[in-house]
Amino acid sequence: MSISDNLNLSIFTDYYSFATANGFLREGIGEKIAWFDLIFRKNPNYNGFAIVAGLKETCEYLSKLKFSEDDIEFLRSNGMDEDFLAYLRDFKFTCDVWAIPEGTPVFPGEPVIKVRGPMIQAQLIETVLQLTINHSTVIATKANKIVRAAGGRRVVEFGVRKAHGPFASLYGSRAAYIGGCNATTSTVAAKEFGIPLFVGMNHSFIQMFDNELDAFRAYARCYPDNCVLLIDTFDCMNSGLKNAIKVFNEIILPLGFRPKGVRIDSGDLTYLSKNIRRELNDVGFPDCDIIVSNSLDEYIIREMLQHGARADTFLCGERLVTPFDKGAFGGAYRLVAVDNGEEIEPKLRIYQNVSKIAAPCSKLVWRLFDNETGKAIADVLTLEDEDLGKCSSYELFDPDYTWKRKTVDNFVSRQLLVPIFINGECIYKSPSLDDIRSYCAEQVDALWEEVLRFENPHGYYVDMSQDLWEIRQELITKTYE
Amino acid sequence: MSISDNLNLSIFTDYYSFATANGFLREGIGEKIAWFDLIFRKNPNYNGFAIVAGLKETCEYLSKLKFSEDDIEFLRSNGMDEDFLAYLRDFKFTCDVWAIPEGTPVFPGEPVIKVRGPMIQAQLIETVLQLTINHSTVIATKANKIVRAAGGRRVVEFGVRKAHGPFASLYGSRAAYIGGCNATTSTVAAKEFGIPLFVGMNHSFIQMFDNELDAFRAYARCYPDNCVLLIDTFDCMNSGLKNAIKVFNEIILPLGFRPKGVRIDSGDLTYLSKNIRRELNDVGFPDCDIIVSNSLDEYIIREMLQHGARADTFLCGERLVTPFDKGAFGGAYRLVAVDNGEEIEPKLRIYQNVSKIAAPCSKLVWRLFDNETGKAIADVLTLEDEDLGKCSSYELFDPDYTWKRKTVDNFVSRQLLVPIFINGECIYKSPSLDDIRSYCAEQVDALWEEVLRFENPHGYYVDMSQDLWEIRQELITKTYE
Repeated sequence: MSISDNLNLSIFTDYYSFATANGFLREGIGEKIAWFDLIFRKNPNYNGFAIVAGLKETCEYLSKLKFSEDDIEFLRSNGMDEDFLAYLRDFKFTCDVWAIPEGTPVFPGEPVIKVRGPMIQAQLIETVLQLTINHSTVIATKANKIVRAAGGRRVVEFGVRKAHGPFASLYGSRAAYIGGCNATTSTVAAKEFGIPLFVGMNHSFIQMFDNELDAFRAYARCYPDNCVLLIDTFDCMNSGLKNAIKVFNEIILPLGFRPKGVRIDSGDLTYLSKNIRRELNDVGFPDCDIIVSNSLDEYIIREMLQHGARADTFLCGERLVTPFDKGAFGGAYRLVAVDNGEEIEPKLRIYQNVSKIAAPCSKLVWRLFDNETGKAIADVLTLEDEDLGKCSSYELFDPDYTWKRKTVDNFVSRQLLVPIFINGECIYKSPSLDDIRSYCAEQVDALWEEVLRFENPHGYYVDMSQDLWEIRQELITKTYE
Repeated sequence: MSISDNLNLSIFTDYYSFATANGFLREGIGEKIAWFDLIFRKNPNYNGFAIVAGLKETCEYLSKLKFSEDDIEFLRSNGMDEDFLAYLRDFKFTCDVWAIPEGTPVFPGEPVIKVRGPMIQAQLIETVLQLTINHSTVIATKANKIVRAAGGRRVVEFGVRKAHGPFASLYGSRAAYIGGCNATTSTVAAKEFGIPLFVGMNHSFIQMFDNELDAFRAYARCYPDNCVLLIDTFDCMNSGLKNAIKVFNEIILPLGFRPKGVRIDSGDLTYLSKNIRRELNDVGFPDCDIIVSNSLDEYIIREMLQHGARADTFLCGERLVTPFDKGAFGGAYRLVAVDNGEEIEPKLRIYQNVSKIAAPCSKLVWRLFDNETGKAIADVLTLEDEDLGKCSSYELFDPDYTWKRKTVDNFVSRQLLVPIFINGECIYKSPSLDDIRSYCAEQVDALWEEVLRFENPHGYYVDMSQDLWEIRQELITKTYE
């Protein structure tokens, strides 16, 4: 049983979604078929892309969408119509939903989720779609950046106490693992999702003994096969490391194990790690890991490694689970088309700030991979009836600077959006978490190095097909007439 | 019934707490009585203080602390001892817990929560205490700063879709209300906690109609008594505002109501709000509010008001619920004393970075209020047997710069920590949320203006009693001998 089995998130919703849905019903347009995109405008964390995550929560929410008598009573007391309350009582979700699978790198302007269904339903799910995708995506993206900074060394998600409450921590651990973290310190995340656990000791354990050496001895007797000692409680080099080495020799080796690691959580991590490495090697423990923690993020890790730090494992807490450089993923849920009974009418919200203008219509998202290098060339948004899978040659053009054109050939193209709900039923079988994580690593690997840069990454191309571009252009022009 | 009734957070715990507790039991020191403080080192958000929040979640967690067979099986599979698993199966929480009530301004170095009880238990609750307090406190603090920036105008918490998942949003709304927000857009937070709801329309409602005027008419017919129109979908001044005024005259007034407001979510909010105010006044709607939103925080609001913006209500989303300037509250849980059977032994972790060194012993926290002005003069940490309530005169001194001394008289002193659990039973009756919110406003009001500054606030004094200081000094000196 999953911890979230008991949870119904149906009213974790901005009240205006109810007010709007109530209005649609009253106006007789609730059953009109509409298309919505969940898009975003900027990559989080100054990154060149985002890593989609959160779909598990989204699917759970959509599968359990119903309203209790309690909920209905609350809405009644806030003035919703009786017709609407009756509608909610018998609520049955019937929308179609497509999503870009978890672990995929995505770019601004691309629909991460696409919804088709009765207006009233598509409206009601707005908030929770954003809430679940926004949170996990910002963390998966940050984790991926940290993992890349660590350059193959282990990264452990260590944020449970610093997260925004229990569930942010639980799903944050999952997202961090998708992004590439190797393990978590969170018991519940390990239990729920099978994420590998990192086990270490803490300062209070040491403080409970008369001295550090006794504490290390007790811990080593307890966990001889996984002995990671925390050596910075008093004086890292002169006390902690010396006591650790003594205990490794005295207890761990005689029991037939090797020491697993030493951890430092304070002081100059770069300087200390170099000295610890030298000393551990000198005494015959080159395989004993050095584990570091203390408000680490990708910038600090990169700097440490540039200066020769000898850490094998980075524990990342608050700066991973509450990303300091960008705490929220700015997902937005946009109406893009309506079936007005005669035809499917494209919809577009025009902003005076033109960079905010998205693309209308129900779309497909294609990613083109170069056959020679395997790298992703560009993404293309197209109308539903365009099939880039059949093109051997394709002319890309920039939707803003349309004179920038380039014909590509020798590529394969892959559709990114996959169906997850058909007529309200979940048909998506999510890959295992480990498969999602490997897929993420592979897909990030398919991006050009320029897109992977930490500072000023190259803007990856998200183009539109000629047909889609023309519809969008027409809607913009009409507004400004 | 509360939404969290079904939730047991017992294993939302860093695994090393289990590993450590298991070690304590094995070493036969699990039942030793220990004292822990939950302290913090830096105010969040560059603020001069923090506002405690999250105690509700903490109490719920501690009241329900038990371990399922499922949990126990998971711990077994990770190598915990059978004795420890048996202990967890029969777990009964017996600690005493004190806390500073929600809504109180607190300062670095002060124990926000104090725990006394068997070592093994006090250790197991470390993570969740931090998790629940850290999250709500950072949001209450940020909310309070935003509310002060708004200078009496309404602030609505609008972060449900941007929060770190559903529960971060739910408890974030509560914390924001404690910090002084006037309302929320979150349906579930309004329902669970009775927080006033803000109701507005959204862009998709407008896009569903053939034109803006028809959409406004439909909305006004639906909600004539609470009509807030969103006027920035096309052109705020030339279309949105004109259509709104038309509909107010055509529908709202004839029905005997007054227009409630117009909202803008894009464009130059300061410039637009001034023009909208002028126009609304000119046509006889000086009472129609102007509501603004778009990534607002205390700095933007302050700047807007300095430049004459005429907004009445600020909707604050992602920058409130995922505070961009500091995403986490850095709570730390420190062992401060142990009953070794003969005496209560003070404990102190010495850091090479001396500013991290806290205060040992089980302490009281006193706040001294000046009788003349009612303002808070300073806080004093004392040993348990010191009673500042009886002092008519008291010599304060800075624990770092001990030559800085000042004798105060004509003050009243109040203890901040109140008991919330005695022998494992919750004895705390939380005030109503509205009372917590008013108490918060009052207590912030009792701080000197210098502490309330946004930039470089004056460092409020948290001093130690002479006796406490001497014990701390002795422990530090002993370590460096």
